Amino acid sequence: MIFSSDHAAPVPPAVMQALVAANQGYAPSYGADAAMDRVRAQVRAIFEAPEAAVCLVTSGTAANALALATLTEPWGAIYCHRNAHVETDECGAPEFYTGGAKLVLVEGDHARIAPDSLQTALTAAAGAGVHNVQRGVLSLTNATEAFTTYSPAQITELTTIARAFAMPTHLDGARFSNALVSLGCSPADLTWRAGIDIVTFGGTKNGLLAVEAVVIFDPARAWEFELRRKRGGHLVAKQRYLAAQIEAYLHDGLWLRLAAAANAMARRLSHGMLGVPGASLLHPTEANAVFAAFPRATHQRAQAAGARYNLVPDHASFEGPPDQPIAARLVCSWYTTPAEVDQFLSVLRG
Amino acid sequence: MIFSSDHAAPVPPAVMQALVAANQGYAPSYGADAAMDRVRAQVRAIFEAPEAAVCLVTSGTAANALALATLTEPWGAIYCHRNAHVETDECGAPEFYTGGAKLVLVEGDHARIAPDSLQTALTAAAGAGVHNVQRGVLSLTNATEAFTTYSPAQITELTTIARAFAMPTHLDGARFSNALVSLGCSPADLTWRAGIDIVTFGGTKNGLLAVEAVVIFDPARAWEFELRRKRGGHLVAKQRYLAAQIEAYLHDGLWLRLAAAANAMARRLSHGMLGVPGASLLHPTEANAVFAAFPRATHQRAQAAGARYNLVPDHASFEGPPDQPIAARLVCSWYTTPAEVDQFLSVLRG
Amino acid sequence: MIFSSDHAAPVPPAVMQALVAANQGYAPSYGADAAMDRVRAQVRAIFEAPEAAVCLVTSGTAANALALATLTEPWGAIYCHRNAHVETDECGAPEFYTGGAKLVLVEGDHARIAPDSLQTALTAAAGAGVHNVQRGVLSLTNATEAFTTYSPAQITELTTIARAFAMPTHLDGARFSNALVSLGCSPADLTWRAGIDIVTFGGTKNGLLAVEAVVIFDPARAWEFELRRKRGGHLVAKQRYLAAQIEAYLHDGLWLRLAAAANAMARRLSHGMLGVPGASLLHPTEANAVFAAFPRATHQRAQAAGARYNLVPDHASFEGPPDQPIAARLVCSWYTTPAEVDQFLSVLRG
Amino acid sequence: MIFSSDHAAPVPPAVMQALVAANQGYAPSYGADAAMDRVRAQVRAIFEAPEAAVCLVTSGTAANALALATLTEPWGAIYCHRNAHVETDECGAPEFYTGGAKLVLVEGDHARIAPDSLQTALTAAAGAGVHNVQRGVLSLTNATEAFTTYSPAQITELTTIARAFAMPTHLDGARFSNALVSLGCSPADLTWRAGIDIVTFGGTKNGLLAVEAVVIFDPARAWEFELRRKRGGHLVAKQRYLAAQIEAYLHDGLWLRLAAAANAMARRLSHGMLGVPGASLLHPTEANAVFAAFPRATHQRAQAAGARYNLVPDHASFEGPPDQPIAARLVCSWYTTPAEVDQFLSVLRG
Repeated sequence: MIFSSDHAAPVPPAVMQALVAANQGYAPSYGADAAMDRVRAQVRAIFEAPEAAVCLVTSGTAANALALATLTEPWGAIYCHRNAHVETDECGAPEFYTGGAKLVLVEGDHARIAPDSLQTALTAAAGAGVHNVQRGVLSLTNATEAFTTYSPAQITELTTIARAFAMPTHLDGARFSNALVSLGCSPADLTWRAGIDIVTFGGTKNGLLAVEAVVIFDPARAWEFELRRKRGGHLVAKQRYLAAQIEAYLHDGLWLRLAAAANAMARRLSHGMLGVPGASLLHPTEANAVFAAFPRATHQRAQAAGARYNLVPDHASFEGPPDQPIAARLVCSWYTTPAEVDQFLSVLRG
Repeated sequence: MIFSSDHAAPVPPAVMQALVAANQGYAPSYGADAAMDRVRAQVRAIFEAPEAAVCLVTSGTAANALALATLTEPWGAIYCHRNAHVETDECGAPEFYTGGAKLVLVEGDHARIAPDSLQTALTAAAGAGVHNVQRGVLSLTNATEAFTTYSPAQITELTTIARAFAMPTHLDGARFSNALVSLGCSPADLTWRAGIDIVTFGGTKNGLLAVEAVVIFDPARAWEFELRRKRGGHLVAKQRYLAAQIEAYLHDGLWLRLAAAANAMARRLSHGMLGVPGASLLHPTEANAVFAAFPRATHQRAQAAGARYNLVPDHASFEGPPDQPIAARLVCSWYTTPAEVDQFLSVLRG
Repeated sequence: MIFSSDHAAPVPPAVMQALVAANQGYAPSYGADAAMDRVRAQVRAIFEAPEAAVCLVTSGTAANALALATLTEPWGAIYCHRNAHVETDECGAPEFYTGGAKLVLVEGDHARIAPDSLQTALTAAAGAGVHNVQRGVLSLTNATEAFTTYSPAQITELTTIARAFAMPTHLDGARFSNALVSLGCSPADLTWRAGIDIVTFGGTKNGLLAVEAVVIFDPARAWEFELRRKRGGHLVAKQRYLAAQIEAYLHDGLWLRLAAAANAMARRLSHGMLGVPGASLLHPTEANAVFAAFPRATHQRAQAAGARYNLVPDHASFEGPPDQPIAARLVCSWYTTPAEVDQFLSVLRG
Repeated sequence: MIFSSDHAAPVPPAVMQALVAANQGYAPSYGADAAMDRVRAQVRAIFEAPEAAVCLVTSGTAANALALATLTEPWGAIYCHRNAHVETDECGAPEFYTGGAKLVLVEGDHARIAPDSLQTALTAAAGAGVHNVQRGVLSLTNATEAFTTYSPAQITELTTIARAFAMPTHLDGARFSNALVSLGCSPADLTWRAGIDIVTFGGTKNGLLAVEAVVIFDPARAWEFELRRKRGGHLVAKQRYLAAQIEAYLHDGLWLRLAAAANAMARRLSHGMLGVPGASLLHPTEANAVFAAFPRATHQRAQAAGARYNLVPDHASFEGPPDQPIAARLVCSWYTTPAEVDQFLSVLRG
């Protein structure tokens, strides 16, 4: 009954086997090997983007910060949702990599930026010219930190506003696969066709050991990204072991099956939550997690039974009145089983 | 009828005379001259801080950014009001000088931080440990960007909250003199006795050509500040010309008379505004500016008569329905005359 | 006949098996798992440093840059050899992570810093006070970029000079294991007992997929390092897969056997080079590589036979007079076989 | 007998009078005043550059660092002479403003870069692609730190090499006027016609209180420079007091007369030095300073007589054998008189 993070799950066997298979003989380092060529071709095919640059890194924070630094100047503003990972969970990595850009927080329900909030923020920006930070880059997250999704139309609406102010858009796709299978659209529809310039196409939260593929749709931006990656210490020498993970991940739709499995478990949990006395959902369940409020006594019972998950906000207390509700963030992964969900629901129901 | 900025005024004759007087013969550079010794003694006496370090720079943005960088690590959060100059008008200088610290915006009426907002923000901070930016420094502004003031008790309340979280406090004192004469307290009461660690003691907005004195109450922080100042290109070679300005400014209470004069004109304007049809005040008038709403038609008449001032927000339009109110920021300086205020009020009254 | 880099080799089977074994069930992320506890204990035992902090990252560039940033202020000078990896091969990562520190290049034969060069550089430093960058940190590399070694006595001599100027010392230990087995001393003798403050204890070049263990002997520095690691995007979520590599690496002396094997092949190659017509050694062979000059015609023959290695400097040309010597950097790894070395020597001998 | 720095001199009366004259009534701030328009026109006319952008700052360090940051990326190398002010006397300001660029030191006699040294450095650069810092910007200084000059032909030779590698060139012109009158050429010949992209046209060392005019020949670079200036805290609010200095300085050739006077005194001193027993010149005297070696006993006598100057290197000692020579840097300014020079020579002659 582990719902603390999609990072807690092990790696799918096919990925581990690919890693073992990649461990044969010599291979050129720093991405000059054939495996990286194959990965590049795979990613370009999946995104229908034959010119796109594809760069691998080992953390989502690195992927996001490098992408943002490539898209904005140090005096630019990064427009993101108040709950965005780049704002709340990266210890200032975007500020560090950009050389001090400012994150401007935009509002919207369920961790989705509301178009009018973005429009207002951009209209007000840089009114005093050189005295203000300038419009820099829009940063979206899909699936969001509330595990809700943006549809292609919703993304297009936001990137259109950004483009009207000559601003590019970054997509934090740490859970891109979960959004994609939830929406049933194509990767191209959810990225460049909707106005995205760079997507960090996540692998780690969907089962890999540690790989994120940064997909840069305008190849003219690739060299700067590569220099920033090296300078940030994120050019892993033995790229074959990153490439092998992505290759197995993208082979024969594994990545989609992993995401679909995680999403299905979240839906199962979400539906089951309706039967938990005093429970309610905080956000629609559109990807691989459920946000639910339930009585503290229920929470204490679940903890005692060995269930593990985080409260929202993180510092919410175990102690307190038993009927006072707490809010839990319950994350499912490809590894979550129906039995695990059902056992957890059973505990919650008491 | 120039109310656009306290920067628009000329320099008081006594200051200019001091500059001319300082222009005699050779003098050591970089602050090794006797004038800098005298300035240091003056500032320490005024602040009743015999150990304080005193460093001169030529802009408020530099003073603030260097002070903040001295007080926080790059991964620290700078807690400031949403309307603070460091947030809105410095093109990201604090982010640049700190190496990417994050400004966390705290709420409160009339540009003053509300203690409970600060308490809430600090309680929530760094809950996820290494994943979050850490508590860094509290930044206050007195007089505020709404030209309201914090009393010593109000500052103490905020710095006490900060200290409970082991956080130092910076005071943006670009209009410190205006606050001081408005409150009628001592510089020590308004700074170190109230928990301030570094104050940027402004001169430029109160009449000088271009000097801000950064007063660092803990001399152990001084060397780092000096290195940052040099590295930022803010160690002016011929310090005698900065020192001469401050020396004249602090001599015989000139600085207090300049601020008192500016404040008096703002009060005169504020009182007169009560007689302007359709006008209302947006903030209490506690320093040297008035924030007033009045009909657009009144605004258009004032502009036609040659009055100059900025609208709030800056991008508010000259065009629009004549009875729709605009909001004006009307700044007085030591140079503003009663006749100028009265003429302007007369134009506004129509 | 691949001598281009120790990065070209595959991973030892025991390490890959450990990775597979680690892939069981759920595990806490970000290093809160039992595997990280075991690794910490192993590293502390090996270094006889029961208080040391141990942090894992996935590249040597990251390890070095984070360590240097933890040891020096932005206005500090990093004293390193002209050929140091931090100077020549990290695209400015130290400058990026430190916020703009300056690398000051010190001379010495065979990529080892000469004590008198260091003494001269430090004596001359910061003579003009605030106008100069200040003494920051000494950075040594062992084995060096010439694959020579520093003995404990040599390191002590240099760190003693540094300490006389109140300066800490960083050790780039990307090939620490190769130096250690070459010297036959203990890890403690080669690090903290010789005055080292932080060592980046390399794994990748000695066989791991991608792990470097940063060992911080003063635990008071650890929290800053951890914040910098997170902020740099180098806190890998699923630390169990990094920990598993190190655990297998340090188990039962595997790391020492890997390094010894690589060193032995370099010695074999070095000895064999004496029989190559027109060949000479550029540096003593003290770790796992040979630097040799030989005629261009020999080089062309080796290339045609499929041998792969880099020339020094990197841009040296394949074209040119056949009897004009080129300089080759021939790196051996744990995976290099005697047959491979002998075949290569046979090709060189013609 | 003050030869310590051109910063030690007072300001010419005409400049001080201009400052007093500028102190009349209100004026728009931040450079929107008519004085800044006049300055722009003056500078453009003098440089025969009708499109050039002109920005004023208050220190040479700021001027240089902002210019370099505008011309190179953070991963760029700044090629400068080992003795350049940007390397030796700015506490790492270029590294700070560029976000961590690396200064690569090039050799040459008398503080002038030797073309073949530059060619060698640039040819060797970035040979390993993404692993190295990239070619960024060439930085020249005229007059140099040895107070020698580059002719237009010498500058052209160096910028031609730089351009062959697609690299722009910055000119540190803190003593541009001294070089110009020494060479007898036009400002255009010594800058853009010789391939310079940005010159920091110094005023402070040639008599002004604190103004350097940064002249950006390609106006497309101006907006970035202005944002960097503001973000660096170098946009002085009351620009009229900077503009007034430059306006007086450039009026009727004052700047040329000031520089010519300083140069003449250096020549007088240089010639007189030939008559000092045991004295020799270290560099040709081409601008406003003399570098001379003379016996320590002579030095001690000069100090006792009240002469002030710096030794080279700065930490050279007053104590030592009387016949061991010291090296002195003797700087003249517009304020130096023939009597002062002659008195000093008389003291030196004993």
